[in-house]
Amino acid sequence: MYSGLIQRVAVIAGVHGNEWTGIHLVKKFQQSPELIERSTFETLTLLANLKAIEANLRYIDKDLNRCFSKQDLSNLELVASYEDRRAKEIAALLRPSNQPNVDVIIDLHSTTANMGMTIFPTSTEPFNLGMCDYLSACYPEVRVCFGERYGQESPLLRSLAPYGCVIEVGSVPQGVLNARQLQQTEMLVHAILNYVDAHNQGNLRLTSSNLTVYHVLCSVDYPRDAAGELQAVIHPQLQFQDYKPLNPGDPMFLTSTGEMISFQGKTTVFPVFINEAAYYEKHIAMILTEKQQLELKAV
Amino acid sequence: MYSGLIQRVAVIAGVHGNEWTGIHLVKKFQQSPELIERSTFETLTLLANLKAIEANLRYIDKDLNRCFSKQDLSNLELVASYEDRRAKEIAALLRPSNQPNVDVIIDLHSTTANMGMTIFPTSTEPFNLGMCDYLSACYPEVRVCFGERYGQESPLLRSLAPYGCVIEVGSVPQGVLNARQLQQTEMLVHAILNYVDAHNQGNLRLTSSNLTVYHVLCSVDYPRDAAGELQAVIHPQLQFQDYKPLNPGDPMFLTSTGEMISFQGKTTVFPVFINEAAYYEKHIAMILTEKQQLELKAV
Repeated sequence: MYSGLIQRVAVIAGVHGNEWTGIHLVKKFQQSPELIERSTFETLTLLANLKAIEANLRYIDKDLNRCFSKQDLSNLELVASYEDRRAKEIAALLRPSNQPNVDVIIDLHSTTANMGMTIFPTSTEPFNLGMCDYLSACYPEVRVCFGERYGQESPLLRSLAPYGCVIEVGSVPQGVLNARQLQQTEMLVHAILNYVDAHNQGNLRLTSSNLTVYHVLCSVDYPRDAAGELQAVIHPQLQFQDYKPLNPGDPMFLTSTGEMISFQGKTTVFPVFINEAAYYEKHIAMILTEKQQLELKAV
Repeated sequence: MYSGLIQRVAVIAGVHGNEWTGIHLVKKFQQSPELIERSTFETLTLLANLKAIEANLRYIDKDLNRCFSKQDLSNLELVASYEDRRAKEIAALLRPSNQPNVDVIIDLHSTTANMGMTIFPTSTEPFNLGMCDYLSACYPEVRVCFGERYGQESPLLRSLAPYGCVIEVGSVPQGVLNARQLQQTEMLVHAILNYVDAHNQGNLRLTSSNLTVYHVLCSVDYPRDAAGELQAVIHPQLQFQDYKPLNPGDPMFLTSTGEMISFQGKTTVFPVFINEAAYYEKHIAMILTEKQQLELKAV
């Protein structure tokens, strides 16, 4: 278990400017900062992609959440796009020269996929696994998903601090506020702040436990023609079925002429981000994960 | 009953460039035009806001579907915005000088509101009411909704022809293809083409019937502060409840601090377009309608 004290936590939203859930919440926290104050650490708030929020777009020039690799941040010639410039500003805010770095980033996102409440921890550090375990204990419907890349190679904003997570809630359209996802996100932010506070106070009682986690395997694109035009859409039987088992032979896509395209894999997988609006341009129809039980041992 | 023959029908999509359902379908029809051919009339297809479709935005400069009033179309100095120019091009395409005008417009839209399959007929002309009756008989789940303005005062694209309708399907996020709404829209397009064909062939057997219709009363904005920032969101009990009765005192909004704001009207209404993404900027949280029975008499 990580034993140092957490000094600074950042609650961040608007990395994607049309994901309103987190943006609305961060504005609420900025108006009522006492909501996210805890006695043992400082909590900052940050709206990340200011121009994209103003324009109600995911981004202006490029996806901000792919601009945070160590290599890109240290490349002082990489300033042509608004997002590359803003990434450097954000990195300087979270790792200031005259104050301690931010230790924990809580990065708020939403998705058009039916992913309920999902946590993407920043890494598999024991502190982060303890956080996932704590959230799962508080809210059994929370799912924990591990991405592919961690650390300084990662281009994601969350990689600017060693601890914390991305919160994804859905399904909610871009540019829409849904009371349910607002409540879920706020609940999770408070639970994470409580976890950090309990950690700092030495009040965490960790018991050995099993944590269900989903590990990203790969992404799957839509069937396309030579010109890149979609030839099929998500099969109705798969739509909204995030985290449900997808077995070899199960329906995956439906072509314009009504033919079913089945999953050709050899083992059962668990798709997430099914039909996420922002991922069409990334050539991602869904992301496949494998489901695992992680044994957490009390130290 | 309108007795003239229909010569030309236009199936139009992409009036809003991020409403993918209709756009995908019109591209399909353009690749396989035999799908929408009928023996008694010509069927055209049109993608309306080309630049917005390319950019995956609702519009570039302004909402194209507010640019079709007779006054604006005839104002040759109104050409500053892309949409004002494109509206004039579209009007010229649908009312060409060297060919018959388009008689019927089928204008395909989608919404983030849970409106299922909704038809907004172009007017209350008997031909259009007969079409609504025909669609309701084919698909009892179809709802018929009447707007506020008709004829040459209307700024809507559908007002360019005397007959036809807007098809709204939802809930589906902007920039997302959902197989279910694709199937529903395609089904309705075919049914309308069949209705026109049967009309032209004199094969329509109209019997007296009662048609349930929803008449638009007014719109309701979100509660906002002096700066225009949202102070409340759609109440969870109202979210996705389009076409369900909203009674005086029923929950309508939920404030950031958790207070319920109730409906202050004096009679029961039937809200539609609840939490439509594109309507936040129009200051519309929902549109209230009244439910009526319309008696259609066979002539």
